[in-house]
Amino acid sequence: MNAARFNPQAFAAWREQQQQAVEQALSAWVSGDAPAGLGEAMRYAVLDGGKRLRPLLALATSEAVNGAATAAMRAACAAELIHAYSLVHDDMPCMDNDVLRRGKPTVHVRFGEAQALLAGDALQALAFEVLVPADGSVSPVLSARLCRLLALSAGAAGMAGGQAVDLASVGSALGLEALSSMHRMKTGALLQASVMMGAATGDVPDQALDQLARYGACVGLAFQVVDDVLDVTADSATLGKTAGKDAAAEKPTFVSLMGLAPAQAYADRVLDEAHDALLSSGLTRLDTLHALADWVGRRHS
Amino acid sequence: MNAARFNPQAFAAWREQQQQAVEQALSAWVSGDAPAGLGEAMRYAVLDGGKRLRPLLALATSEAVNGAATAAMRAACAAELIHAYSLVHDDMPCMDNDVLRRGKPTVHVRFGEAQALLAGDALQALAFEVLVPADGSVSPVLSARLCRLLALSAGAAGMAGGQAVDLASVGSALGLEALSSMHRMKTGALLQASVMMGAATGDVPDQALDQLARYGACVGLAFQVVDDVLDVTADSATLGKTAGKDAAAEKPTFVSLMGLAPAQAYADRVLDEAHDALLSSGLTRLDTLHALADWVGRRHS
Repeated sequence: MNAARFNPQAFAAWREQQQQAVEQALSAWVSGDAPAGLGEAMRYAVLDGGKRLRPLLALATSEAVNGAATAAMRAACAAELIHAYSLVHDDMPCMDNDVLRRGKPTVHVRFGEAQALLAGDALQALAFEVLVPADGSVSPVLSARLCRLLALSAGAAGMAGGQAVDLASVGSALGLEALSSMHRMKTGALLQASVMMGAATGDVPDQALDQLARYGACVGLAFQVVDDVLDVTADSATLGKTAGKDAAAEKPTFVSLMGLAPAQAYADRVLDEAHDALLSSGLTRLDTLHALADWVGRRHS
Repeated sequence: MNAARFNPQAFAAWREQQQQAVEQALSAWVSGDAPAGLGEAMRYAVLDGGKRLRPLLALATSEAVNGAATAAMRAACAAELIHAYSLVHDDMPCMDNDVLRRGKPTVHVRFGEAQALLAGDALQALAFEVLVPADGSVSPVLSARLCRLLALSAGAAGMAGGQAVDLASVGSALGLEALSSMHRMKTGALLQASVMMGAATGDVPDQALDQLARYGACVGLAFQVVDDVLDVTADSATLGKTAGKDAAAEKPTFVSLMGLAPAQAYADRVLDEAHDALLSSGLTRLDTLHALADWVGRRHS
């Protein structure tokens, strides 16, 4: 599906190049200077890990709209900092109580709960700091827009709210619509915001913006459906985190509600819609965004 | 000292009026709409409590520089949201493990640890959202500047970093300079940022800005010294939180390092410097800022 739209090798090369650039930028901004071990915990939480999907979405969207590269890298890293902080807090004993993340002990296991709590808090603040550089390399108007997009996606109407619904849903009979709504907040909002922040770095007609929002929503949903599929089909070593934990926690998932094969088919349909949104956007430099959608939908970890 | 500079009744009236306005604004912005009990926990953490010192500093400074009132109220409430989130997280079992705050059970006691963690996270995001209104009532240039001031004061170089030093200092032989440095980050940074955000709402010469920064730093330090004094001289009912807990936790304080009377004298000297900074600023509408400094330095809870 859609394989003709892009060159897989070109996409792999782009992805690796961007992942390295993101790693360098994050390493510079998460300085480690913070006192009393806090900096070390922050760097441990952020660096050398993850697919960097949110940064890739921001950067690819910025390229698609011919956006400002400096601002795009800051938006990319700000989204990743929010994601990284959420993982640190989600893994804590009072939440998911997970000990393994990206193949390493989780932050609270390594540094203690108090330091994990503070590292997450400081990473969230850093995300907004990164969006408003002192050197004037991002226009204040764009900084303000990026801050608003990020704050909305991270807060009570987005990621934090979705996490609250998720916690409340354990052992409950959540239906498919409620499950989709929960994931739209918990993971979808930040993924979509990554796309919209990338779009904000350029000058995009409203109609294209609407389609990019639809693309971001579909990629977010596909990401989660595939996540649920992998939770039952992959092992912990491949995932770099504890497999099968949703079932163990009696959490409703797309697989538990639909069955495995229908969930996989659903992911494909959602991916089709992501591609369709791009085709309807009127934009032309879309190869990387097409490829990213498939990369999310066909990943194995 | 300095009593002649302002009318105590006028200040009390101003304070009560502003506290009510802040309460109304916070009640509107912390909507309670967040799902699965999150909104309720957020409102519980924020509303109907506290002296609102950070908002008062922002609002009084904005008045002193003839700043934009709409932006000032948003800056005031954003600072309070950061403060409120930090209290929620600091009270959690893995941090200070406190059960009483503002005379009520702490958020994790009332709503559970997971909800407390999420409520704090969502309040931090909301603080930045409030600074960038969608209605254009704050200029993007000012929004960006406020976001940067707030992020710096809340993050690893400010509040979160100071909290990390505080945790690491339990049972240690912290000297007076190290203790001051820790408090400059932990509480001083956000108090000073409240002043600087208020100043940013107007058009202030650099020289006045420097003096306002000095004022903010002194008020922050005086606040903490008095806090340490009250921890040994006041009871829990008066404080609305657990008294004597610093000594119980073997935390170094200004009182434990200097003794009670010298700590009280030190607070007075720092207050004098706060007043001096205002007098050196070249600004003219300073009565409320003078009064606020004394209110902080002479409080009984």
